[in-house]
Parts: sequence; structure tokens; C-alpha cells
Amino acid sequence: MNLRIPGPTPVPAEVAQAGAAEMINHRGPQFAAMLGRITAGAQQVFQTKNSVLTLTASGTGAMEAAVVNHVAPGEQVLVITIGVFGQRFVDIVRAYGAEPVELAFDFGSAADPAQVDDALRANPGIRTVLVTHNETSTGTTNVYLPQISEVVHRHDALMIVDAISSLSSIPVQTDAWDLDVVLSGSQKGWMTAPGLAFVSVSDRAWARQETNPMPRFYFDLRRAKDALARGETPWTPAVSLVFQLDKAIEMMLAEGLDAIYERHRRLARMTRDGIRALGLELLASEGLESDTVTAVKIPDGVDGSQFTKVAREQFDTVFAGGQGPLRGKIFRFGHLGYVHEPDIRAGLVAVEKTLVSLGYAVANRA
Amino acid sequence: MNLRIPGPTPVPAEVAQAGAAEMINHRGPQFAAMLGRITAGAQQVFQTKNSVLTLTASGTGAMEAAVVNHVAPGEQVLVITIGVFGQRFVDIVRAYGAEPVELAFDFGSAADPAQVDDALRANPGIRTVLVTHNETSTGTTNVYLPQISEVVHRHDALMIVDAISSLSSIPVQTDAWDLDVVLSGSQKGWMTAPGLAFVSVSDRAWARQETNPMPRFYFDLRRAKDALARGETPWTPAVSLVFQLDKAIEMMLAEGLDAIYERHRRLARMTRDGIRALGLELLASEGLESDTVTAVKIPDGVDGSQFTKVAREQFDTVFAGGQGPLRGKIFRFGHLGYVHEPDIRAGLVAVEKTLVSLGYAVANRA
Repeated sequence: MNLRIPGPTPVPAEVAQAGAAEMINHRGPQFAAMLGRITAGAQQVFQTKNSVLTLTASGTGAMEAAVVNHVAPGEQVLVITIGVFGQRFVDIVRAYGAEPVELAFDFGSAADPAQVDDALRANPGIRTVLVTHNETSTGTTNVYLPQISEVVHRHDALMIVDAISSLSSIPVQTDAWDLDVVLSGSQKGWMTAPGLAFVSVSDRAWARQETNPMPRFYFDLRRAKDALARGETPWTPAVSLVFQLDKAIEMMLAEGLDAIYERHRRLARMTRDGIRALGLELLASEGLESDTVTAVKIPDGVDGSQFTKVAREQFDTVFAGGQGPLRGKIFRFGHLGYVHEPDIRAGLVAVEKTLVSLGYAVANRA
Repeated sequence: MNLRIPGPTPVPAEVAQAGAAEMINHRGPQFAAMLGRITAGAQQVFQTKNSVLTLTASGTGAMEAAVVNHVAPGEQVLVITIGVFGQRFVDIVRAYGAEPVELAFDFGSAADPAQVDDALRANPGIRTVLVTHNETSTGTTNVYLPQISEVVHRHDALMIVDAISSLSSIPVQTDAWDLDVVLSGSQKGWMTAPGLAFVSVSDRAWARQETNPMPRFYFDLRRAKDALARGETPWTPAVSLVFQLDKAIEMMLAEGLDAIYERHRRLARMTRDGIRALGLELLASEGLESDTVTAVKIPDGVDGSQFTKVAREQFDTVFAGGQGPLRGKIFRFGHLGYVHEPDIRAGLVAVEKTLVSLGYAVANRA
């Protein structure tokens, strides 16, 4: 099966096998050494000297950690949204009794730093800004992240970034862009099975945590920091996934970050070219297309609700459908993590065959 | 290495290999079928018709879920403690702004139903009782759980049970004992790597959740229930651990619950007999010794802080030390999950050799 969704992504055989190693004590020296290695490796991938904490949770758990550790009940929070995962931040902020001020941009477009500046001027009490770097739901990258970070810090606010589906595949310069809190997840570019999430925390964010009255326990990052200093996690970690991640990070560092970024750029371009050659349109505006996932509009006359089913059942390829308001209107083609040219070629063939099977007359053969 | 800690426990090769299977879409039919199987299997192991939800988290995440879904801020909660993990419930309740009323029993003893009754009479506002079934920190089983449940329901309170290190190894009759919320974790008797936790929820507990104002999101069990009805989890689950669990439950049901319980009883007895034959004392009072983990007092004249290190480095066996106030005073010998006679025999030999190496004159050779 060609798994062409934007996560979970294919796990290389070496990584999968590493996860099958003999179980160990999570409070012993072997685990401590491994936790030290993956933390140092993750810091390289995050391009940061900040703490990077590894949680046993989905990416959504890391999003919750970002909110509960830095946002106070009742506090106004600016949430910049460009799709479904930005909305998830809105939902979490609201669930925890804080007040989201949503600055929404159209699906397929990027956030405009000038409008972020306006929103922060209009709401001078805001101390925290939440933003998605790469919208998995729309295949769009928020390309002005460094400029937004500059604006946010000019207003003395914390910059919290969901980089779950970008970091490790697309450059995210945590320190150079002065990002206070950055999130990622094992099942994306990290080539590891789902179940681990990462959070990087700047000194500014640690200071905020000290006085933040929001209740928290499992996702209390101070506990994770204290435990990490002893080579441990506060709660029993997903040891077999840490085995996998240890191997995956070794592979990533051997390939090199620049080579990984270049591979993702090349395969994303190949995907987009192939999609356009079929006469299809992308959801993302030009120049904002994500290098990890491509969202494709279902062409007129094709039953979008059948697309993923037909591709899976007839053409052995798993695409993702649209989420929320995009259900049935797009499909999404993942090209992140352990992915190479043959996967993209096979994916494009499956797109074409699926559309033809659903009655689409392919317009412009490449 | 003989992994003789009370979790993570050894993962059988078939289970470990199942976890290395090709990654799949967590929102597709193959995952839905698997989630259906593990849920039905877990219900058998829980001996319940209640919902059983599988979370991507440590056991502590399940403990947090039990608290945030059923306890309101400011509410008084009775927490029955017999060791360190009971204390964790106290900490979670306090972290979430509720008021723990602790009914503490000495380490090594079980909770007395009459004293639970007294505590509930003295605090008539209490609607929720938290209790540990099997104290991993002291090797003690709270054997009067059915009687406590009867008392709790007479006072119209919810009965929430941490059965993380008992259920699947020691009988826990969720329905017959009328337990409202019961917790377990994959890395214990389930023979699966850590990272998945289970929560069963009675109708009474679901009703409580509907009106409970406590903020929650990642661990919101209503979201897990709604997703399960669609064959999904609300957030990306630890798919490779679900692969493992699917295989492990198949093995458990093939062995049969009664046979599993009997094996644990037999191996626990063998462990205790062997420990006593070395002239050592158990922490648990007679008749309350856990069938999943044995806590052994470090004999006089032996440096308890060195025990686990020497056992690991010189005798290839990993025991757990004491936690909290028990640090350096006990060691713990795990005998749950995928464990058989040779593991126990080898563990006992390692205990003896370690003690001798630390200067103990073994008194009564069996």
C-alpha cells in the first residue's frame, strides 16, 4: 500500500525494527543515554539551543501542552488560523477557559504580518500568539513566520508555533526566528510511528510557566524538564517509539538537514507539476504551497466523497480527504518523511486512475 | 537482560514484531477493524460491558483522564491511599483545583471498608472516591475493593479505580464489583510496550461527565467515545502500539483469563517463597501480597541504594528500587505480563547473588 497521507507516514524498515528491540527499564542508564541522544538530535532538527521535551502523546497533546503551560484562564489569546488545525488551537484555548481572539485567513492563504500587528494593537492585553506553521488541512505554509515572530515580540507576546507537519521536513529556525514554543510530532517528517510529540521552550516561555496558574499535570512541562535533567521522563514513556526515534534521528542526521529539506522541495515540486499536468488545481495560493502535503481540488463532475475509497480499494494508494468544511471538496497527497521519487510517481498514477475511474476526462496529459 | 520491574514488562517477540508492521492510515477501515477488536478484547479483560477507551498516553494520563472527566474544580474528593500511586491521585486532584480528602493506610496494608464508610459519613458532600487496586510501589493489593465499592455506592459516590498494574494479571471484575471508572496500561499485564492506557466508563460516570465543568481536551473521554463510534480515535493514535496490542490481546484470550490469573498467582507464590527462603521480609502484610509485584525489605547491613545497580551490572537483572519514602529501603521484583518460571528462578538467583555481593550472609538456604 502506498501511504500518501500527511501522517502517519511510512516508517523505514530499520526504524520499525529498532522499535522491536528488547524492552528496557525506562528509569535505567540505557534509557537515559537514549533520551539524551534524541533530545540533542531533536535540538539540531529544531535548530535550537532551547529545551526540547519529548512527550508520550499525539501532536494534539503537544498543542494542549503549549496552551496549558503558557496561557492563563480568562486570558485573551491571539490565534492566527489558516485552516482546521488553527481552529484546533481555538478549541483548546476555549476548552481551558481562555478567550481566543481569532485572526482568520482564507484557506489556502498565509497570515499577513501587518494584520497580526493590527490585531495586537487592537487588543493590547494579549500576551500570547498561537499560529500554525504548515496547515496540514489545506497544504499551505505560513511563509511569513519570521516576520510574524518579529511583530509578536515587538508587542512583548509569546510566539507559539504548531510546526507539527513542517519541522523536520521544511526549514524551521527556532532560534534564528526567535520562536518561543515550537511543536512537532513523531509521525510526520521524523519517520517514526505516531505517539511521541515534541515541544521546544525558550527562556521567555519558561518564565511564563513559572507564574501561569492554569491547572496541569500530565502535560506540565516543568515536570518534563526536571525529569530530563535526571535522564528520565516524568511518566512511563513510549519506550519502543523512543527506540524508533533514536534510529530515525540517526538516519536524519546522516542524510543532513539541508539534504532533507531539498528532497522535500524536489518531491513537492514533482507532485505539484504532476497534479497540474492532470489539469487539476491546488488549494494553496501560488508560492504558499506546502512542501509536505499537497491539497488538490476535486474537479467538477467527480464525486469527492468517493475519491479516497476508490484510490485505496482499486489503486492501492491511501490519500487523505478534506477535513471540516473541505470534506469532499479536496484530497490531500502527503509527501513528507521517508518518501522518494517512486512513491510520488506511483501516487500520481493513482490520482489519475482514480479520477478516470470516477468519470474525469484527464485534460492535459504531461 | 532479565527485566524484573513492575513495568514496562517484557514484550513477546510476536508482539514486538507485530508492532513493526507497515504503517497504516489511522482513519481507514483497517485501523477501524483493529480498534474494534482491541476494544472488544479489552472489555473481556476488564470483565465489563461498559465502554473501554484506549488513549495514547502513559498510565498517569489515564489517571488524569479519570480526574478531569469526573471531578469538578473545588469539589471534595476522597482519595484512598496505600502508597506512592495513591499519592499521585492526591497530586492530580490538587493540581486541578479540587480538594483531596486523603484516607491514608500504612504502606503494606489494605484499605479498610469500614474506615471508608466513616470518611464518607464525615464528609457527606463527597461524590467521588479514588482508589488504587494494586500498589506498584509497595507490592500490596487492596483486596477489599468489592466491599469498598459497595460502601461508595451506598453513599451515592462514583468509584474510580486505578487498576493499572493489576487488571489483566489479577482478577478485576468491573461489572460484578460495580466499578464506575477503571484504569489500566499497556506496559503491564498486557505484554505491550508502554504508551497506551485504558479507561472503562460506566453509565453513571458518563452522566457525571455531561455536567462536569472541569476544562479538558486531549483527555476528554466524550471525544474518545464519539470517535470510537466511527472506528477512530479523536487524535492520531500510537498505531504501532495498537498493532502490538492487537496481537497481545489475541495471545491473552488464547491463554484464557483464568489461566493468566492462575499463572500470576503461581509465579507470585514462587517469588515470595524464594524471597523468604533467603531470610528476607516482604513489605506487604500477609494475605495482601500482590500477585504482580513483590516488594522486599532490604536487610540490615546491606546498602539499599546499591541493590538495583549491582543486580543490573553484575547479574544481568533489572529490579526496581523503592519510590518516595521507600527509596533505598526496599527493592521490587516484578512478575507480571509475559513471565514464566525460568524468569522467576533466574530473578531469585540474581537477588541472592546481589545480596551476597553486598555483604549479606544468606540465612536460610531453601
